[in-house]
Amino acid sequence: MINCKSNRQVCLASRPKGLPNPTNWNIISRQIPTIQSGEVLIKVRFISIDPAMRGWMNDRVSYIPPVQIGSVMRALTVGEIVESKNETFKVGDWVSGIDGVQNYAVSDGTQNAKIDLSIAPPQTYLGTLGIAGLTAYSGLLKVGRLRVNDAVLVSGAAGSVGAHVGQIAKIKGNHVVGIAGGSKKCRYLVDELGFDAAIDYKNEELSVSIAQHCPKGIDLFFDNVGGKTLNAGLSAINVGARVVICGAISQYNLTHSIEGPSNYLLLLLRRARMEGFIYFDYHKDWPNMIKELSNWHSSGKIIGKEDIVKGNVDIFPDILLRLFNGENHGKLIIELQN
Amino acid sequence: MINCKSNRQVCLASRPKGLPNPTNWNIISRQIPTIQSGEVLIKVRFISIDPAMRGWMNDRVSYIPPVQIGSVMRALTVGEIVESKNETFKVGDWVSGIDGVQNYAVSDGTQNAKIDLSIAPPQTYLGTLGIAGLTAYSGLLKVGRLRVNDAVLVSGAAGSVGAHVGQIAKIKGNHVVGIAGGSKKCRYLVDELGFDAAIDYKNEELSVSIAQHCPKGIDLFFDNVGGKTLNAGLSAINVGARVVICGAISQYNLTHSIEGPSNYLLLLLRRARMEGFIYFDYHKDWPNMIKELSNWHSSGKIIGKEDIVKGNVDIFPDILLRLFNGENHGKLIIELQN
Repeated sequence: MINCKSNRQVCLASRPKGLPNPTNWNIISRQIPTIQSGEVLIKVRFISIDPAMRGWMNDRVSYIPPVQIGSVMRALTVGEIVESKNETFKVGDWVSGIDGVQNYAVSDGTQNAKIDLSIAPPQTYLGTLGIAGLTAYSGLLKVGRLRVNDAVLVSGAAGSVGAHVGQIAKIKGNHVVGIAGGSKKCRYLVDELGFDAAIDYKNEELSVSIAQHCPKGIDLFFDNVGGKTLNAGLSAINVGARVVICGAISQYNLTHSIEGPSNYLLLLLRRARMEGFIYFDYHKDWPNMIKELSNWHSSGKIIGKEDIVKGNVDIFPDILLRLFNGENHGKLIIELQN
Repeated sequence: MINCKSNRQVCLASRPKGLPNPTNWNIISRQIPTIQSGEVLIKVRFISIDPAMRGWMNDRVSYIPPVQIGSVMRALTVGEIVESKNETFKVGDWVSGIDGVQNYAVSDGTQNAKIDLSIAPPQTYLGTLGIAGLTAYSGLLKVGRLRVNDAVLVSGAAGSVGAHVGQIAKIKGNHVVGIAGGSKKCRYLVDELGFDAAIDYKNEELSVSIAQHCPKGIDLFFDNVGGKTLNAGLSAINVGARVVICGAISQYNLTHSIEGPSNYLLLLLRRARMEGFIYFDYHKDWPNMIKELSNWHSSGKIIGKEDIVKGNVDIFPDILLRLFNGENHGKLIIELQN
């Protein structure tokens, strides 16, 4: 069953300043671990590459402890049970979890959930039926309290979360405008995902284009980007608008203090709300959320574009950087080949 | 009845860059106006001096139109009806309103409310029973959804709104820390208003003192100041915190772009909410709010310190500046002498 003689692991060697570089990683081979009573051995098959990873590398108290120096890099994963001393899981079960950038993980199963491959292929549980879909759903509907006929602006719209946000907002009957980098991504948003308009931040003046595509202002702004993008979105918010802070990918690798939104006083003038969230907080409602997301997925109402790179764990440091240079398009996943 | 032969008015002559200066004002004497059917003539007795006035002087769309060049400066007022052709009001009635920096105003009464001098003296309707109390009440209880045992931080705490916020939060059973400038104001907050602690921003390191006085973090931050103060407060927010944006007095007179809160991503990490408001939005509930405020006021649970300057309207340009140089202490009001 175990078809690989060692467990290759990507460990954090040092904390990055700015963009992560090769010296921040230590890639090592270890023996495949043995399991105790109550545990399972998981062969990791798919690794989710997420902007949040950059935050986990900092030595800063956050919603989750930082990855410790010398530890395996934290990652959301999908894998297969290859040994089990736990009655909940049997060999051959597929599970999602947070099993790290490595080939094998030992788990007591409490952080793993079985996934149903009859509904969708395994990697979809890292996309539409995983972090991307659940983040979009909880942020848009629970935090943002999306209504009907809202004018919705989404930044990072061609990213995995942003693309789900826009599609869910369309399903719910809203006017949706996305911000993305480059005409290819912008065409994709409009032509394939059904956004009403897309703004190419690399070639357009954000505030001008926002005013053009949201002539009545913005009711809900779902921000994945921060910096100038957040400021431009804030400049167009309506009275009672909701600004959902999901991330700030433009700011994660700065070596200086991040840029705060100088337009934040519009929250006062427009009596608006800016709120951050973490999708983990809504885990009690995941069964319902996944049910609705899988219905949309099955019926083709949501396209969960995946950007899958095949290889071994050694490619992780390079692939991670694709999130920050605008190279990836869709949910970035490593499919392990060994 | 009319004991002054002309109507002296402070009009906006030009829009300030930075702090208002004498060239921004044109003080003129006009004839006392005559009234038509349905109108009243109000003799203005008390003029409320508020930080919001600075925003009204800018040529920018806001929650209320800018004061036009040549127009009488907008101000909340309390005055006396000296002539009436309106059946709702009779000569001798006292009213609150938005009747401007002038001796006499003509009104159709729709923006005026009769005030009851058996409950409190007229100037209190600009303080505890007016903008200061109503702003504090609506911001703290309706926007901030104050709970019990919240750790509450208030900036601009010795200002009229801040002082009410702190006292209401204490009445409701919370731990309250105020930020103010100078040891005299800080002692006042603790010794006279019952704050649990006060931080002197002129002589203390904000983040250190916040950590000392709110060792378990902040659940509700009521910010009147903005800039570095907002950032310091954000750095200490707890999961689920509410940050109420009431104003940003440190930023109103900047000639460059205002300073955005570089710590805003803590809203994400702490799943917190930052929300702005305008107390006008809660006007439907004013009767209830004023009833509760006047009970607290009558029973001595709230002290509405007033900083009353007697004079004619000509002193307005100088008195306004006291809001921005930290000189005033309590609700700043001009009591007109002629």
